[in-house]
Amino acid sequence: MCLVNAMHITASVFINDNESGLHADYERWLEELVPFEPGSDPKQGGYLRNRTGEDNADAHHKRQIMGREVVVAITDGKLHLSPWEHIFYYEFDGKRRKRVLVKMIGE
Amino acid sequence: MCLVNAMHITASVFINDNESGLHADYERWLEELVPFEPGSDPKQGGYLRNRTGEDNADAHHKRQIMGREVVVAITDGKLHLSPWEHIFYYEFDGKRRKRVLVKMIGE
Amino acid sequence: MCLVNAMHITASVFINDNESGLHADYERWLEELVPFEPGSDPKQGGYLRNRTGEDNADAHHKRQIMGREVVVAITDGKLHLSPWEHIFYYEFDGKRRKRVLVKMIGE
Repeated sequence: MCLVNAMHITASVFINDNESGLHADYERWLEELVPFEPGSDPKQGGYLRNRTGEDNADAHHKRQIMGREVVVAITDGKLHLSPWEHIFYYEFDGKRRKRVLVKMIGE
Repeated sequence: MCLVNAMHITASVFINDNESGLHADYERWLEELVPFEPGSDPKQGGYLRNRTGEDNADAHHKRQIMGREVVVAITDGKLHLSPWEHIFYYEFDGKRRKRVLVKMIGE
Repeated sequence: MCLVNAMHITASVFINDNESGLHADYERWLEELVPFEPGSDPKQGGYLRNRTGEDNADAHHKRQIMGREVVVAITDGKLHLSPWEHIFYYEFDGKRRKRVLVKMIGE
């Protein structure tokens, strides 16, 4: 098996299609579900999280929808993905150097 | 450990209760969060994804909420699930032959 | 690798920051996405699930957003987490004795 996870709590690793229209749809949809808002007053659409001096509270929510990690089978020495599956790193904040952890176990 | 994942990007594998009312609730809820809409104009509720000739953009979103895979412990040679846990394959599109990958490792 | 999963279908195990403001934001956000409602008539905001005598249908939905399990790499005998990652058990119902399964494999 192969574990792939984001090493940031404002990013996701997920598996879906490699198609730019879909990725733009995800952006728009996630922004609807949990809008970026630098404010920290929940009554005005802000997040308590942003009282820590950050403005990326929305990113911590979006990452929960899209997921932190994927676990992929390895068969005959190769990632066992279906034809349209691709593994993506998705950054919701963008201010940091990106790191991903890849861990193989077993085969 | 046992990995179970959908081999389609418009389907999920998830673990929850085997109860038809709950499953109907999920259907209704997911449809609210990301409605089926064959159109491809985001201003009219459509998805850019559907410009590829598909009409299943909503399915690619629903699968992100419900998840691609589950990893289940194996103890004494059996899946280590709690009393109400059941593993489900959830198809959001429905047009394809279904495939699930099950991979055991270790015990 | 280390698997950590909730042993209840109304709870999640997830990884994010250990910060009370963020946790309060999650509560509020999840309540918006899928409000607690003991009723069982979907037309009045209830859930069919609650016809089974339960009132925790919302919890079964919230757990799908936040996830059932996490898989974490082990490197040099320690959980391989990034600096701000913490593993949380998140209870959405609250009426049961809590159980979490932790399974190590390989290293």
